[in-house]
Amino acid sequence: MSIIRKHSSERMSKINIHNGTIYFSGQVANDVTVGIKSQTQDCLKKIDALLLEAGSDRDNILSTTIFIRSMADFALMN
Amino acid sequence: MSIIRKHSSERMSKINIHNGTIYFSGQVANDVTVGIKSQTQDCLKKIDALLLEAGSDRDNILSTTIFIRSMADFALMN
Amino acid sequence: MSIIRKHSSERMSKINIHNGTIYFSGQVANDVTVGIKSQTQDCLKKIDALLLEAGSDRDNILSTTIFIRSMADFALMN
Repeated sequence: MSIIRKHSSERMSKINIHNGTIYFSGQVANDVTVGIKSQTQDCLKKIDALLLEAGSDRDNILSTTIFIRSMADFALMN
Repeated sequence: MSIIRKHSSERMSKINIHNGTIYFSGQVANDVTVGIKSQTQDCLKKIDALLLEAGSDRDNILSTTIFIRSMADFALMN
Repeated sequence: MSIIRKHSSERMSKINIHNGTIYFSGQVANDVTVGIKSQTQDCLKKIDALLLEAGSDRDNILSTTIFIRSMADFALMN
């Protein structure tokens, strides 16, 4: 089965499609000096754009892992 | 390909089935004040229940990631 | 759909193949007292061997997560 990749660099691709499943690279906010709420919104915006480009959307997310610096940021991230 | 979801909230589903693969949400112990051994047993119990409900079992696990607070807890978790 | 496993212990298998996708267990360097560069090279060597044994190679990697102790190690790991 072949793999379709988009936004590929030497190191990785942001979008990887294989056998009906899409794998995205991890996304971080462009500006990591702003608060957790803005960083979360920025991540979601980037993820929405990648989903759209891959022909999918948030309704089709199967699994994701979120890393935050401190559990003190949890409420605002959520 | 369609996705079957169970135990869905606004934020996530505990069980997500797509293309012959099941994706579970992360599980934590109900009581996080008890020791690592009890917390591990509680997690396994919850995971067994989700596997059963999804029509699978521990013999069919493909991949899992375990997060522990300190490597000092590793031996008892294992 | 059946699962093919290789290098199985009571706890896990290093290679798990299901429905055209291969899942590997996490790899760490054999010697964790050497620098991050050597540890990274050792991990890559072990991953290459597992990929080869599973009938795949680096060109077919879909997703991976890298854990490092400190972001100070990032440049040399990369």
